Amino acid sequence: MERPAENGPRPSRRRVLLGGAAAAGVGAMTLGGGDALIRSLRAPAETVANAERVHGGRTYPFHGAHQEGVATPPQAHARFIGVDLKKDVDADGVRRLLTLLSDDASRLTRGESALADTEPELATAPSGLTVTFGFGPGLVERVDPKAVPDWLGPLPEFETDRLEERWSHGDLLLQVCSDDPLTLSHAVRMLLKDSRAFGEVRWSQEGFRRAYGTEPDGTTMRNLFGQVDGTVNPGPEDEDFDPLVWCGAESPGWLRGGTALVLRRISMDLDEWDRLDRPGREDSVGRRLDDGAPLTGGSEHDEPDLEATTPLGFPVIAEYAHIRRARSEDPDERILRRAYNYESATGEDAGLLFACYQRDPDRQFVPIQRRLDELDLLNEWITHIGSAVFALPPGCSEGGFVGQTLFEG
Amino acid sequence: MERPAENGPRPSRRRVLLGGAAAAGVGAMTLGGGDALIRSLRAPAETVANAERVHGGRTYPFHGAHQEGVATPPQAHARFIGVDLKKDVDADGVRRLLTLLSDDASRLTRGESALADTEPELATAPSGLTVTFGFGPGLVERVDPKAVPDWLGPLPEFETDRLEERWSHGDLLLQVCSDDPLTLSHAVRMLLKDSRAFGEVRWSQEGFRRAYGTEPDGTTMRNLFGQVDGTVNPGPEDEDFDPLVWCGAESPGWLRGGTALVLRRISMDLDEWDRLDRPGREDSVGRRLDDGAPLTGGSEHDEPDLEATTPLGFPVIAEYAHIRRARSEDPDERILRRAYNYESATGEDAGLLFACYQRDPDRQFVPIQRRLDELDLLNEWITHIGSAVFALPPGCSEGGFVGQTLFEG
Ligand code: HEM
Ligand code: HEM
Repeated sequence: MERPAENGPRPSRRRVLLGGAAAAGVGAMTLGGGDALIRSLRAPAETVANAERVHGGRTYPFHGAHQEGVATPPQAHARFIGVDLKKDVDADGVRRLLTLLSDDASRLTRGESALADTEPELATAPSGLTVTFGFGPGLVERVDPKAVPDWLGPLPEFETDRLEERWSHGDLLLQVCSDDPLTLSHAVRMLLKDSRAFGEVRWSQEGFRRAYGTEPDGTTMRNLFGQVDGTVNPGPEDEDFDPLVWCGAESPGWLRGGTALVLRRISMDLDEWDRLDRPGREDSVGRRLDDGAPLTGGSEHDEPDLEATTPLGFPVIAEYAHIRRARSEDPDERILRRAYNYESATGEDAGLLFACYQRDPDRQFVPIQRRLDELDLLNEWITHIGSAVFALPPGCSEGGFVGQTLFEG
Repeated sequence: MERPAENGPRPSRRRVLLGGAAAAGVGAMTLGGGDALIRSLRAPAETVANAERVHGGRTYPFHGAHQEGVATPPQAHARFIGVDLKKDVDADGVRRLLTLLSDDASRLTRGESALADTEPELATAPSGLTVTFGFGPGLVERVDPKAVPDWLGPLPEFETDRLEERWSHGDLLLQVCSDDPLTLSHAVRMLLKDSRAFGEVRWSQEGFRRAYGTEPDGTTMRNLFGQVDGTVNPGPEDEDFDPLVWCGAESPGWLRGGTALVLRRISMDLDEWDRLDRPGREDSVGRRLDDGAPLTGGSEHDEPDLEATTPLGFPVIAEYAHIRRARSEDPDERILRRAYNYESATGEDAGLLFACYQRDPDRQFVPIQRRLDELDLLNEWITHIGSAVFALPPGCSEGGFVGQTLFEG
């Protein structure tokens, strides 16, 4: 339908590189995906300005101290996949599986095809692809039963839980994120091919946020209730980010530099929510719907004043408001939220893939969720229907594989 | 996680406007979505270059001679929804439904909230949103039984069909496309709310292509077999586009300037396809996998030489090759393809939402598909599992509604 012109002025290579690099706005982002860049250099005349926003070549490094996909600015699309290992897969099998997976993940995230890639052309535009691996207790036990951290297993039950097995637990997590849906689909397929001989998919959950470039970088996402969601969240630039998120000396050695993922599938009753008037909806959270500012004034990133009262003496941010209940006096009781919206094609089941990262769920997610479970007006419209906890090992170096430290213990 | 700086140099308004407009690369594209633009003007210092690629404000006009979503360059995401009307909905009900839907579609595509929008903030970044309406025979009959065109109804059966009711037929089609998945989700929800009193969802199918900006505009899409798919396709710049696609004098009057959609859900057996070696896969279509060039040489948009033979006297492009079989001697026997990839979350069902547009399916889609049904090597790996035909009325003017012409007959 659109045929690129055969000739015409081309954007200079520098322009293209700048376009990509400046658009990234992230320290860790490097430029890769040579093919995509070369293709963008072949862009037709009409798209000179256009080339500045061609972003398929953006990559995050697979190798490093930490796995990407945690502190990484959330990409537009995510797939969380829980895999159950086959009964006969032993420690050696786990090692082989992780070696295969890490090798392909390192290729794919660079914009190269997987080792046995049958559709190599689908791998050339990584668009910020990250692949993150997590281990359930079932996997860790097969390698070293003593290496299972205390917190790795089903969470305590909460009063308001309505958990379904089909969205819960699993031995191995694949978390694949990219700004491009075709790249994501292809990467997932390649990784699942690697795992086929070793296990089977227990569940697969797809999430979305705004597309890359719909809004300026740094705009906080909105969830399907229309709320600005993710405002108060530790960021890699914060001093206490590392100790909150990355496992340290108190963890089993193999997990240092790793983290813990709590993934909750939280169904949201959009229709009931819509029956509530706007003030009622803002009251339930304690923030404004239009710009996410606290009900006590200011703008999105200003501190809420939890002491402020109305002329009648009621708190402006109600006792049952989500942000009051979610907040702790204890500065260590915080989590990194990196949630995605989800929706079935017919819209019958919609909500949040609430993904949060921390060094120890028992001390971070659990006490927060306990408070919310007890009292949070949002509970009127939300229901936790899935739950899984995974230990995410640290990153690996070139030639190594994610999870290698588990075999060195 | 990323907190926009409070101050710093802002990109000039002109820069932002240019960024959006230049990026569009489409005549029909106008600039809208004021809110998104205003937000991009508030972008932090680091994202000055970044603002050039902020594209959430792009709009296509809802009003005009034709509906958008047909000749429009395909957006990254699509939802096709088949709705069945309730038994008691008469002509007057249809008119009320179409009035509601057109009104909301015109707002949403401009980046404004729907009339009874409960999440107006989710409407501000249209990202090229289009909403296209189509009618099955069930809807047309309720207004005027004599107005049903001959071709509107189930297609003839084909030998290789394995159609399932759950992906077939329907009274009303909503086709919603956008480069932003959250915008798409919100628009669909608003339109389905309008339709709830009048009908229920029969099926809903989601499709994807590359994200906006992953590759330069005008790059032909790839399907899940990794093939370049969409090369030989009439484009709006072609002289014969209008008579191929838009209904003319031979159609019932209400359909002039409209078109016919044939939507086939075609499942693709990716695993079996992957067993075939690369030459075998290229042979089945008659084109190269790397760049989509014909097997007889040249580059993607060069003409295939259907007469060329190998030294042994065999045709270079085989008798069973998809492109030979899909091509007709009759220049009127062509269609506008606008397909999307689809995939269930687990990847068990993946394929193509083969959407094609034409003035008369009986003379365009049917003879092509008859030839493919008889002989096309691709049939080894693909299966048609859903089928629906809709009459897409012409566009409407401001204050009018899509389908209005049906009431004026
Ligand atoms: C569908 C379910 C949920 C929805 C719709 C939701 C929505 C929100 C919204 C709108 C905010 C205010 C803006 C912000 O700071 O992000 C917020 C804050 C927060 N939420 Fe949630 N949330 C949900 C579930 C949870 C869960 C399960 C937890 C943890 C157990 C949680 C923890 C937090 C925290 C820690 C904050 C920041 C509070 C502060 O101001 O210090 N949320 N949430
Ligand atoms: C999953 C199913 C299908 C796949 C994977 C597929 C793939 C392809 C590919 C790779 C090409 C070559 C590049 C191009 O020109 O786009 C092509 C061409 C074409 N296909 Fe298909 N196709 C499918 C189904 C169909 C169907 C159902 C029809 C119509 C009944 C059709 C009609 C055409 C036409 C008209 C061409 C252009 C032929 C020419 O060169 O003149 N295709 N298709």
